[in-house]
Amino acid sequence: MTEPVYDVAHLGHVEMYTNDYDKSLDFFTRVYGLTLSGEDENSAYLRAFDDYEYCTLKLTKHTTTGVGHIAYRCASQAALDRRVAVIEAAGYGIGWIDGDQSHGRAYRFEDPFGHTFEVYWDTVIYEAPEDEKPALKNLAQQYHGRGCCPRRLDHVNLLANDVTKIREFMVTCLGSRVTEEIQLDNGRLGGCWFTVNNKTYDLACTEEHGGGNGRLHHVTYATDQREDILRAADIFLENGVHIESGPHKHAVQGTFFLYVWEPAGNRVELANAGARLILRPDWEPVIWTETDRKKGQAWGMKTIESFHTHGTPPVVKDA
Amino acid sequence: MTEPVYDVAHLGHVEMYTNDYDKSLDFFTRVYGLTLSGEDENSAYLRAFDDYEYCTLKLTKHTTTGVGHIAYRCASQAALDRRVAVIEAAGYGIGWIDGDQSHGRAYRFEDPFGHTFEVYWDTVIYEAPEDEKPALKNLAQQYHGRGCCPRRLDHVNLLANDVTKIREFMVTCLGSRVTEEIQLDNGRLGGCWFTVNNKTYDLACTEEHGGGNGRLHHVTYATDQREDILRAADIFLENGVHIESGPHKHAVQGTFFLYVWEPAGNRVELANAGARLILRPDWEPVIWTETDRKKGQAWGMKTIESFHTHGTPPVVKDA
Amino acid sequence: MTEPVYDVAHLGHVEMYTNDYDKSLDFFTRVYGLTLSGEDENSAYLRAFDDYEYCTLKLTKHTTTGVGHIAYRCASQAALDRRVAVIEAAGYGIGWIDGDQSHGRAYRFEDPFGHTFEVYWDTVIYEAPEDEKPALKNLAQQYHGRGCCPRRLDHVNLLANDVTKIREFMVTCLGSRVTEEIQLDNGRLGGCWFTVNNKTYDLACTEEHGGGNGRLHHVTYATDQREDILRAADIFLENGVHIESGPHKHAVQGTFFLYVWEPAGNRVELANAGARLILRPDWEPVIWTETDRKKGQAWGMKTIESFHTHGTPPVVKDA
Amino acid sequence: MTEPVYDVAHLGHVEMYTNDYDKSLDFFTRVYGLTLSGEDENSAYLRAFDDYEYCTLKLTKHTTTGVGHIAYRCASQAALDRRVAVIEAAGYGIGWIDGDQSHGRAYRFEDPFGHTFEVYWDTVIYEAPEDEKPALKNLAQQYHGRGCCPRRLDHVNLLANDVTKIREFMVTCLGSRVTEEIQLDNGRLGGCWFTVNNKTYDLACTEEHGGGNGRLHHVTYATDQREDILRAADIFLENGVHIESGPHKHAVQGTFFLYVWEPAGNRVELANAGARLILRPDWEPVIWTETDRKKGQAWGMKTIESFHTHGTPPVVKDA
Repeated sequence: MTEPVYDVAHLGHVEMYTNDYDKSLDFFTRVYGLTLSGEDENSAYLRAFDDYEYCTLKLTKHTTTGVGHIAYRCASQAALDRRVAVIEAAGYGIGWIDGDQSHGRAYRFEDPFGHTFEVYWDTVIYEAPEDEKPALKNLAQQYHGRGCCPRRLDHVNLLANDVTKIREFMVTCLGSRVTEEIQLDNGRLGGCWFTVNNKTYDLACTEEHGGGNGRLHHVTYATDQREDILRAADIFLENGVHIESGPHKHAVQGTFFLYVWEPAGNRVELANAGARLILRPDWEPVIWTETDRKKGQAWGMKTIESFHTHGTPPVVKDA
Repeated sequence: MTEPVYDVAHLGHVEMYTNDYDKSLDFFTRVYGLTLSGEDENSAYLRAFDDYEYCTLKLTKHTTTGVGHIAYRCASQAALDRRVAVIEAAGYGIGWIDGDQSHGRAYRFEDPFGHTFEVYWDTVIYEAPEDEKPALKNLAQQYHGRGCCPRRLDHVNLLANDVTKIREFMVTCLGSRVTEEIQLDNGRLGGCWFTVNNKTYDLACTEEHGGGNGRLHHVTYATDQREDILRAADIFLENGVHIESGPHKHAVQGTFFLYVWEPAGNRVELANAGARLILRPDWEPVIWTETDRKKGQAWGMKTIESFHTHGTPPVVKDA
Repeated sequence: MTEPVYDVAHLGHVEMYTNDYDKSLDFFTRVYGLTLSGEDENSAYLRAFDDYEYCTLKLTKHTTTGVGHIAYRCASQAALDRRVAVIEAAGYGIGWIDGDQSHGRAYRFEDPFGHTFEVYWDTVIYEAPEDEKPALKNLAQQYHGRGCCPRRLDHVNLLANDVTKIREFMVTCLGSRVTEEIQLDNGRLGGCWFTVNNKTYDLACTEEHGGGNGRLHHVTYATDQREDILRAADIFLENGVHIESGPHKHAVQGTFFLYVWEPAGNRVELANAGARLILRPDWEPVIWTETDRKKGQAWGMKTIESFHTHGTPPVVKDA
Repeated sequence: MTEPVYDVAHLGHVEMYTNDYDKSLDFFTRVYGLTLSGEDENSAYLRAFDDYEYCTLKLTKHTTTGVGHIAYRCASQAALDRRVAVIEAAGYGIGWIDGDQSHGRAYRFEDPFGHTFEVYWDTVIYEAPEDEKPALKNLAQQYHGRGCCPRRLDHVNLLANDVTKIREFMVTCLGSRVTEEIQLDNGRLGGCWFTVNNKTYDLACTEEHGGGNGRLHHVTYATDQREDILRAADIFLENGVHIESGPHKHAVQGTFFLYVWEPAGNRVELANAGARLILRPDWEPVIWTETDRKKGQAWGMKTIESFHTHGTPPVVKDA
């Protein structure tokens, strides 16, 4: 066994594009329950109440929807330098950028299907303003109870034509471990779940069936309890949000989930993994076959069709 | 910033002494809801339904109660070797032992107050017998629903006369990070919470007030939901188990908790941390002062007196 | 407004037929979590841990599945006498029977579609044996925590070709109030929910689409929390029970639900209504249209096809 | 057995006095999560999201705190007339009042310790404004998710020097049933729990130990789930609300509870009874002895001292 790599600490933030910025921002703050740390000309910097960084969701005005970039924070400056060397050597590198109001210098690179990634070390720690200070000093911000009020960023799910290539990319660039994967009868990977730490996954990639490139399947925040997700379903319902699927429990990873579409059409999830963690250092990927997956979700629900086809941005059909 | 050490993967198991073995074993299997992997002449090897190892609680017949040893699994054989070198150099080392039915060779060492520790790499992975196979292949064993049915080992809490010395010991020997601590007005540490991974803590040490040495405060398993703990309270009640404190929420670490005494007198806890993790690589310890602690637990409950005095084994008073 | 009738106190018990008695009994005791009060030659007398009567589910050996009878307990002997007079005058009456080990004399009557009903006053109160005595004296039996462990019988759902006739029958015979109903575009009632007390419903009747007569749709017990139902889903999954639908929330009545089929094929439900009660004495039925119902369940899930067609006993097709 | 009386349908509303009106109103709307139906010169008319009436909590400006009156809605006009006749005959009557913006004519009467009661039939049904209309038509108002967001009024707890006299008063005037009571060793009643319907209690009376007269112990709203109460504890904590006791489970009635003091000092509770109802028509009161009560609350927590002494208005000590 090669020793695991610990250069990358955790998924840091996701940049989401919206072509309906005001409605998306209203959704994420009032309904989904994130806090707005700040705005610049093109973007809102959002985070959950216990995210320690200034931003975990960068919501950016754009001509369409989808994902701008996915950023991981490294474990130290030295670890960042090591990662950049590996990424450049592997030929995925793009180059350094200056950062924004939420973090400093970051190194950009790209997967084979057009998703942009960043790694960085220098970040902005969230400092709660006086009226958002928590009663308990081990929280990043007070538990505000507004909207669905998830605790922290959890993971992102991308779409790609060849999941095997993404697996190679993730393992190489980030030192990610594969925790679970779907092995299709045709020999292809149907999906793959990755982690750089003890979370069960921080990034998933599933096969693109809609003909798009570089698309986003969904972004997910974690709630403390499953009851928070049942409660969220009522909040979404009362606010006219499109509930696509759930609440239910995934067979893969055993996560309790709820998927909705924010006003611009990006899919967002709330999820709860209970006390499940990947603590085992020599964890062997769980392999799901097509036969396994035919059983549906954990409690038998058939996955809704749009879950296999809807991604952002939408695929433009030729006239 | 020095880079963090990743040699130690996770708390592996705790050996608990009991002078009422049959009753303790009945409690842990039927009421607390662990599974018996096997027994030898002196010990029962127990684990929670999703613990991947053969044993996370070794229950050993003894003349009294308390903790036999605390064992951490390393991230690889090389990591184990590095750790042993560090421990020996620091003067805490004892030597290698052969292991038992639950794991292979392990290196023993001791903290300044007589608690025995082990680090090991070679372990026995739990293989569920046919009638305990899970419906979902990413579980170590089926969700049996028996008793309180926690998911996995969470942490151990020790007592020591000088918590500062334990902090030095933990940081040196295991590369643990301090996530939270209590700073008393007299300059001493009242308690200190450690982790080797993304869990908020895997070992806590609080100040010994009963005159004992090498004593155990409690061992804890994690449940998936807070509701599991409310349900457990009714199960303990109906089974005549002494409920000492809770359910309530700790201010320190924000954990939802319930403390009971197993039949021989060892304190055991069920706890739920929600989605809280320590993902930040440059986490700075949260410092609680005596003034902070006077506010009681998170929701104001005053900590019950026995929580400060009861440890195992009981302190024998001179005649 | 006519004054409401209070002669009937509550749904007392349901007799369920099974052609796989041993497996059904194992399911109801070990998995679903009822307690066996006693057995006679043909039947098992079952109840939930906080049902005050000796029996709320009479499980009877039979050549097929379905419902034997539905029994309501009256508020007093005088109230029973008044009800019998009304039922007889309305032409639904059959006559008195002697009862069984769970209750005394009862009056039998029948709805227009062959479902047998009983009303009774004289009952057998459950006396918990020594090892089932509760720690808290306001429970009928200890909270045993075995299987899904619902608290009490909740309701029964019947199928009928003409729900309007059932509505007339229920209002006349039992003085039931209609709390909600589905008004189809064709002028027929698609479903109707009834109660004799403050529960939101104790009997529902939905339109028979399978060509059967006197069939059962499902029997339901209530859990204390929605989390009990999520936990039950895992218990059903691990025990190989067919999960038909849920957990999800009904739009009608807002009940959180989970439907499974017991081994002989009868549908059983676990449900949680939260704190919802019908306290308003002049409650006006909530009318759901077909347009309303096209929105699916509360959070948008489409109702699974078998929910509209599966009833017990199965309909025998002519050769 | 005499037949039960069904003239009184349910607890309708409680009038609470406050000498800090603005802060109390802010607490009840923003933190506790009630909705303001309207205001007049002296009072705010508040209700929970699924209360069908315009007002279940009338918050009235006053020189001190405490309870203005307790009102029950009768089952019909005829039932109201019958009740008034009984109350007058028993010598507790005061006379008719005109009502307010929340209900029509009501009959006032008084218990032996100065608590004012009302019975009424003519009420104002809450009509949700357009932006508060629920997505599901069986709710009185949308689930707004603001603050603790309980579902409905649950009960009121009064203090009296002689609980036995209150029992006589309640049984006579309202036809209430006694569901549980505390029998002290000195022969007195320590507390008594009453209901007019299937709820386990709608009014409790416990012995006054502070020398006051006509005092309030607390007013309670019901949440759908216990998790709502755990979540509420964090909301109260973050809003600086004095949490007096809980969350925990009462031995008496088995209710999961949380007690806080609103800004003017009145104690308010959130409670969840799970699926527990009093369906048995011949229910026999559960009798708790002093020995029973020494075991503390259900899970052993000792009741905090202020719970026995704090009532509103505070008792003015002579100089």
